[in-house]
Amino acid sequence: MDKVKVAVLGGSGYTGVELIKILLRHPGAEIVAITSRQDEHIADLHPSLLGRLDMRCEPFSPDALQAKGTQLAFGCLPHGNSMESIPPLLDRDIRVIDLSADYRLRDVNVYQEWYKEPHQDAKNLAHAVYGLPEIYGGRLAGAKLVANPGCYPQTAILGLAPLVANKLIELTGIIIDSKSGVSGAGRTPKLNVHFPECNESVSAYAVGTHRHTPEIEQALGDIAGEPVSVIFTPHLMPMDRGIFSTIYANPTRAVTESELVELYRGYFAGQSFVRVRTSLPATKDTVGTNFLDLCTKVVRGKVVVLAAEDNLIRGASGVAVQNFNRVFGFDERTGLM
Amino acid sequence: MDKVKVAVLGGSGYTGVELIKILLRHPGAEIVAITSRQDEHIADLHPSLLGRLDMRCEPFSPDALQAKGTQLAFGCLPHGNSMESIPPLLDRDIRVIDLSADYRLRDVNVYQEWYKEPHQDAKNLAHAVYGLPEIYGGRLAGAKLVANPGCYPQTAILGLAPLVANKLIELTGIIIDSKSGVSGAGRTPKLNVHFPECNESVSAYAVGTHRHTPEIEQALGDIAGEPVSVIFTPHLMPMDRGIFSTIYANPTRAVTESELVELYRGYFAGQSFVRVRTSLPATKDTVGTNFLDLCTKVVRGKVVVLAAEDNLIRGASGVAVQNFNRVFGFDERTGLM
Amino acid sequence: MDKVKVAVLGGSGYTGVELIKILLRHPGAEIVAITSRQDEHIADLHPSLLGRLDMRCEPFSPDALQAKGTQLAFGCLPHGNSMESIPPLLDRDIRVIDLSADYRLRDVNVYQEWYKEPHQDAKNLAHAVYGLPEIYGGRLAGAKLVANPGCYPQTAILGLAPLVANKLIELTGIIIDSKSGVSGAGRTPKLNVHFPECNESVSAYAVGTHRHTPEIEQALGDIAGEPVSVIFTPHLMPMDRGIFSTIYANPTRAVTESELVELYRGYFAGQSFVRVRTSLPATKDTVGTNFLDLCTKVVRGKVVVLAAEDNLIRGASGVAVQNFNRVFGFDERTGLM
Amino acid sequence: MDKVKVAVLGGSGYTGVELIKILLRHPGAEIVAITSRQDEHIADLHPSLLGRLDMRCEPFSPDALQAKGTQLAFGCLPHGNSMESIPPLLDRDIRVIDLSADYRLRDVNVYQEWYKEPHQDAKNLAHAVYGLPEIYGGRLAGAKLVANPGCYPQTAILGLAPLVANKLIELTGIIIDSKSGVSGAGRTPKLNVHFPECNESVSAYAVGTHRHTPEIEQALGDIAGEPVSVIFTPHLMPMDRGIFSTIYANPTRAVTESELVELYRGYFAGQSFVRVRTSLPATKDTVGTNFLDLCTKVVRGKVVVLAAEDNLIRGASGVAVQNFNRVFGFDERTGLM
Repeated sequence: MDKVKVAVLGGSGYTGVELIKILLRHPGAEIVAITSRQDEHIADLHPSLLGRLDMRCEPFSPDALQAKGTQLAFGCLPHGNSMESIPPLLDRDIRVIDLSADYRLRDVNVYQEWYKEPHQDAKNLAHAVYGLPEIYGGRLAGAKLVANPGCYPQTAILGLAPLVANKLIELTGIIIDSKSGVSGAGRTPKLNVHFPECNESVSAYAVGTHRHTPEIEQALGDIAGEPVSVIFTPHLMPMDRGIFSTIYANPTRAVTESELVELYRGYFAGQSFVRVRTSLPATKDTVGTNFLDLCTKVVRGKVVVLAAEDNLIRGASGVAVQNFNRVFGFDERTGLM
Repeated sequence: MDKVKVAVLGGSGYTGVELIKILLRHPGAEIVAITSRQDEHIADLHPSLLGRLDMRCEPFSPDALQAKGTQLAFGCLPHGNSMESIPPLLDRDIRVIDLSADYRLRDVNVYQEWYKEPHQDAKNLAHAVYGLPEIYGGRLAGAKLVANPGCYPQTAILGLAPLVANKLIELTGIIIDSKSGVSGAGRTPKLNVHFPECNESVSAYAVGTHRHTPEIEQALGDIAGEPVSVIFTPHLMPMDRGIFSTIYANPTRAVTESELVELYRGYFAGQSFVRVRTSLPATKDTVGTNFLDLCTKVVRGKVVVLAAEDNLIRGASGVAVQNFNRVFGFDERTGLM
Repeated sequence: MDKVKVAVLGGSGYTGVELIKILLRHPGAEIVAITSRQDEHIADLHPSLLGRLDMRCEPFSPDALQAKGTQLAFGCLPHGNSMESIPPLLDRDIRVIDLSADYRLRDVNVYQEWYKEPHQDAKNLAHAVYGLPEIYGGRLAGAKLVANPGCYPQTAILGLAPLVANKLIELTGIIIDSKSGVSGAGRTPKLNVHFPECNESVSAYAVGTHRHTPEIEQALGDIAGEPVSVIFTPHLMPMDRGIFSTIYANPTRAVTESELVELYRGYFAGQSFVRVRTSLPATKDTVGTNFLDLCTKVVRGKVVVLAAEDNLIRGASGVAVQNFNRVFGFDERTGLM
Repeated sequence: MDKVKVAVLGGSGYTGVELIKILLRHPGAEIVAITSRQDEHIADLHPSLLGRLDMRCEPFSPDALQAKGTQLAFGCLPHGNSMESIPPLLDRDIRVIDLSADYRLRDVNVYQEWYKEPHQDAKNLAHAVYGLPEIYGGRLAGAKLVANPGCYPQTAILGLAPLVANKLIELTGIIIDSKSGVSGAGRTPKLNVHFPECNESVSAYAVGTHRHTPEIEQALGDIAGEPVSVIFTPHLMPMDRGIFSTIYANPTRAVTESELVELYRGYFAGQSFVRVRTSLPATKDTVGTNFLDLCTKVVRGKVVVLAAEDNLIRGASGVAVQNFNRVFGFDERTGLM
């Protein structure tokens, strides 16, 4: 079988380079182009790619991508920018897996409320598939446009899905206390992620205002079949990568820990990348992998869910390849084990 | 005025060395002895003390401490060990500020439930003062035995005190999600705090079973005048020092953020070491100091309190000196600014 | 072609787990046994292996390994222990790639001098191949016993090989100033690698006495055809993995930087895993890979070589698989890209 | 005695905030002004100063500083900027301790060679005192302009001074391999010091071109009474603060380690802030202090000196206060213990 020709849009950031590394190992994908505003060899932007990929970044051009036979583009562009760049690709029959937030929220009003700008591409938004394979896997085969899920939301959605699906918890007031490594903030230097500022320090940010909130609520609402509301607090951790979410929910009836383990194991049976554990997870157990680790506890009548993942792989580029595999009919694990 | 002659019991750990450094700057204290089972020069145990303190550790001996004129001993011993060592000091009229957990819980049954061994010194427990100066300050002057508070509890108790005192929140189901640097785990090498294990990783531990839980509840119960119950989840952060607690509570009536700031500023008016902020705190802002930083938010109807401190200073040795200052009538800030 | 049946001896440490992860991706290898004194499931020792390898550790038994058809054993045992365990395997026609130091030094007197104990297996030492493929590659095909090289020595030997081979530098007084991440110290908790001790700190250790010194000198002597002597100073860096060596040598004649680049590119032409760079390397560029990055500078008449690698992969388990590939005739890069 | 009125020029960076913290503890200094282009409260720039200093930054104005009775200004400005700002202060009889590089190099040609711009203030350069108290202490009392020494140079100069003064080593080809924490790169966000870039990584930079080279050589030349030349290689370490220098020199005659210890102890006898050790130093032993730790070894005929300091305190703001103390006749240790 011929390899699928793929392009990476926006190759200069952290999700771009992770994606490239995974694709280089993928037997069914061939990178034909990497776009960037920085007109440089990809290995000059990311020296870790020296000797692994001999390719120069090119300016974004839908025609040039089409001319190269691109079948799918991974979008690693900033939100806002994505919804400008993607329509001309779709018009040329190039599929897209978009790692930005632009096609995640179905309701343009919710988008505008949280992103403070109007959505520009309601047409394609209408058919975009939210790419969380464990929940929306059935819609991924052959999808034209996949909205790759956010890093935090995956821990929250998968961490809560079995509870919400079974109405085992109250659907309001769910607390999601998340801790993320610094790579989640991107590669643009800023004071808050300047090494001597954030090293050896823990802080909260965007308390009550983080844009992943509506994304979490949309997916949990889908699972529940009714609205869900959460309090989501992200924190910055002094480490490169990894997200750990500690989730607190009020059960609707008394539950035991063994019952929860059974529930989670059943819910995720057959899923390649969700590990339901009885030991407490650590982000390090997941670093470099596409696994998301879950552990459930009952503490003084509350359900506590502990979720860990690598924010760049499971949280972004790994799940993007998992989606790619499902879109093109590869084994979901291809390139990811 | 003569300097107060003090001894440090258990000088080989992290709280011991922090205490020594603070005391070396304190104009009203003179270290007359450091005890340790390790028969070594203190600067061999802690090379940072080279050229700053020329003293050899000695075995613990109440008689020897008395012979040196010790007026107060800081106990940096493990729990269990403390309640064996402290009674003979009190019998010799040596005051004690105990940094262990042995005299923090007033109810010996609660002690036994959480520490899995019977309390051995109910007699002195009866008069021990819980050394959280902002709450129990009135009882500290002249105290014979001060139970220095735990590191996590201070963030939780002070973070919640104004709310609990005013019955502004429900007193059950309060969630305290705490993140601590590794020094909180002590200086004994173990696999979970071996550098390559915990570096670049975040994990939860002792979920639902951490011994600081009853300590938090006891103090909050004192403030509320009725029982308080909390869900406390500690996490290990890849950094040396610092605790960040994110606290979630259900208000009993609608509150605004500005109202909370005013409430907190009023409650802590005149306190030297509590900083009520409107900006989000970071542990780094407090490292090396005795300050505890607090910020309050209202998120979707919940009150969120963010608290940060240096776990070794504010969380242990700094507040111990703050207690020392109050016991002997020094300005509370002496040696701590 | 059938997969080669391999065993991992000593699976509880860091080189063991890295090796397992690489072998799981290797299309030509099948792990049939992992030995450890810890009678546990491998994923309990290393939670990162959850869902990736379902295997229980077993006690070391040459007969049991033979019964499982083991064709090659990777030895991840401590030195001393290795030379006891390996002879019975070789006697059973099980090949060995030994990651310990036991078969690296050809001269048993040198071994005794640096390791402070007599060598116990001179017989097999006589035919062991020092497994640095770029230098001794010709001897690896079909080798029975490969002494996998040390982490530091690879940076020094490959960093200096082109200079020494061409007698472009003086062969005495070469300075090798190396900086290593903490995983190089192994997985046994000790005070010097306890997180709060070594985090946020840089220190030197084993100054003038590190056992990698004779290993470096032996290989460089082979390349030079005459004795070489070095001053080797290892340092501990506050990071998980990575070695950076800064090497200073006196050229025997004036050299230019461009001449050195050409020399190095020529010397390593065709090598898969040595990247000769003109930009300054960083250990991060190599982390997670089997690459060793080299850059040469001329500073005030001295040659300065900068070398970077991942100490656990290129420095141990990756090069072990590179050796495995050469022993069994696989493409050298199999499982390593 | 009245306190000396001091100003801090350029309060927004790391040396500025460290200096402020030290001065707040200094019984003989009163901060009357902090200048910055950022028109903000100092605690908004540095939240760690909350509750410790209630002062707004002001634009730099020599007249305003004079009007406030400023007796001495600490210059924490970038080089180039310093030599523009300092002359008008000196003209108003305000003394200056300049933490920039502008007045360190006596020879304007050397300045131009390394800093790539002409020196603008030869007049004041002529009377500037290089503020390394252990070497130039005799010239500090009453000095009008002190050029505070660089962070790296102090480890190199003090590390080599006893050897150079006694002509115990060859004066050319001395190798100084230095490792620094990231705060040494300043507070301006840049890609190379962006957390996910430099965390968990070691790299060299400015190999052969670092501007501290001539500063080291000038001071060592003064001590030797003849030219000294060094090869200086700085490295970036993944930690906030600390410098570790490993220095290699060729002795002019055979020396023993015990002889070196004696030499160093004699040379630094009576110095408050140099600790000559027989144990290997670690930067952590010095963090938060003004101490510089030295240890000497003899390895295969070479002298190896190991030097450690806190780059922000001993390497900048601490030694600035040490200089301040000497200029105004305070005990050198005031505010620094």
